[in-house]
Amino acid sequence: MKCRRCRGQAVIELRRHNSSFCKDCFFDYLTNQVTLAQEKQKMFSREDRVLVVVSGGKDSLALWEILLGLGVNAWGLHINLGIDEYSQKSEKSVRNFAENYDAELLITNIKDEHGRGVLDIASKTTRTACSACGLIKRYLFNKVALEKGFSVVATGHNLDDEAASLLGNVLHWKEGFLGRQSPVLPSVHPKLARKVKPLFRLTERETAAYCILKGIDYLKEECPLVKGSTSLHYKEALNLLEQKSPGTKHSLYFGFLKKRAVFEPPQLNLKECLRCGQVTTDETCAFCRLLSEVESKTRVSKERIC
Amino acid sequence: MKCRRCRGQAVIELRRHNSSFCKDCFFDYLTNQVTLAQEKQKMFSREDRVLVVVSGGKDSLALWEILLGLGVNAWGLHINLGIDEYSQKSEKSVRNFAENYDAELLITNIKDEHGRGVLDIASKTTRTACSACGLIKRYLFNKVALEKGFSVVATGHNLDDEAASLLGNVLHWKEGFLGRQSPVLPSVHPKLARKVKPLFRLTERETAAYCILKGIDYLKEECPLVKGSTSLHYKEALNLLEQKSPGTKHSLYFGFLKKRAVFEPPQLNLKECLRCGQVTTDETCAFCRLLSEVESKTRVSKERIC
Repeated sequence: MKCRRCRGQAVIELRRHNSSFCKDCFFDYLTNQVTLAQEKQKMFSREDRVLVVVSGGKDSLALWEILLGLGVNAWGLHINLGIDEYSQKSEKSVRNFAENYDAELLITNIKDEHGRGVLDIASKTTRTACSACGLIKRYLFNKVALEKGFSVVATGHNLDDEAASLLGNVLHWKEGFLGRQSPVLPSVHPKLARKVKPLFRLTERETAAYCILKGIDYLKEECPLVKGSTSLHYKEALNLLEQKSPGTKHSLYFGFLKKRAVFEPPQLNLKECLRCGQVTTDETCAFCRLLSEVESKTRVSKERIC
Repeated sequence: MKCRRCRGQAVIELRRHNSSFCKDCFFDYLTNQVTLAQEKQKMFSREDRVLVVVSGGKDSLALWEILLGLGVNAWGLHINLGIDEYSQKSEKSVRNFAENYDAELLITNIKDEHGRGVLDIASKTTRTACSACGLIKRYLFNKVALEKGFSVVATGHNLDDEAASLLGNVLHWKEGFLGRQSPVLPSVHPKLARKVKPLFRLTERETAAYCILKGIDYLKEECPLVKGSTSLHYKEALNLLEQKSPGTKHSLYFGFLKKRAVFEPPQLNLKECLRCGQVTTDETCAFCRLLSEVESKTRVSKERIC
């Protein structure tokens, strides 16, 4: 198997591109895809301070490493979700990376700040663990970006994530989500940073291979709470189709980006949360409502015990 | 397992409806779904002469049986595709049904009329067998409907077929196809009948169960040419999702029917084919172009032999 670019010994085959690459050309390919994503979608400029949300997995660490390599002013933000050993390993993986790359890292810990981990919180509400986790992470990265003056928040969502999310939105024709699904969400309020997904042109197999070949020590373990989630089913179905017809995920997501204008983006009436001041469409934000739900459930339980 | 309606012994469970039915209530359910499809989508009226395209499989025979039971003036049209033993069995199954139900049946045979079966035709063109077969069938049922004065052509496409076709159109964002995918295609030219799919509310498992319980002797064999076709991959992916979350196919297709107005139906400039007179968007119709391709390939082969 020869490298498509230099004809050297290839280390990876990318069926959807009908290409193979040697190690160095694969690094170039990957970095070029991120540059292309950034330039075409106008994700950020040299002036932007970028907050990279890093879980400690392959995607977020690959993203942080690439952005640092491109000279982007990219700080890491790790949100410790309080999922026992898994969260300890995640934080350790992020700390190691920051130390090795001499990168600036911010850490916030849900258990320290709110007294409970994500599973404990979710179990006291009607949300699934993944739904509560997503809500908490979005709230916290917006909050940190605002407090620390970051104009852009970057997440490690890759093509598999975006295609799976899109498939879910299409299977249930969630028009609001379809209207705003994009690799870039512009800032719609002075208190909200722009959200970008610079890895949307790359698959998870590619970011994993990048980390391995670069010697980035990422956490291989999957979050224990994700098992059985619908997003995994969507990924499974897409993997089946991708195997039969390489390029299916790319076609689904990139085709959508061309057509997405047909879906109306939702009209948002943004306010500031009466409780915490963060941006919301309601009187209080979803995060504060989640905490209220937990508090009231806990109160009821305590009263029952008394 | 109790029947949802009469509390008798159920014979079938429909997970997507969270229901079970006994034999008689299942027959009612199925017939009601066809009546609902017909009424809601204004498929045909008592005055219409309906040409049912019958392959000899579960869907088309179930459809024909239900329409006859509802008192619709429904004639069968069987297109013998010239696929050796499979086509012989298909025709036999249709003939048996027509005899048992004392129903009017028209038969057209591609090999008799054009000297070649569908596989032979496809192999001399750039089309896959399924693509050539679809084109030939559409051409022939339109032609027969026009010649014999049928105002409506009904096909046995079920929810699995429609959802799989929709998934394929979404995966590749085929806007033209999305714009015209519907259980009813109105007549857009005096030479074209209305096309309807009265089984779009029912799954293939339901039509198979209906035939078995009704004692309709359908051909169980799958067409030998369909193996490896993309539509089978789409069905496989949807079956996976349906198994994890019953109702996924329904949600995909029925959600689409509500939203489909966002996709522009293609503007068609219809003419009559210079060669055969059938309706087309080009100078000659796709069927005549297919035959020309076969003829020119055959001529070249003969010249080479000479």
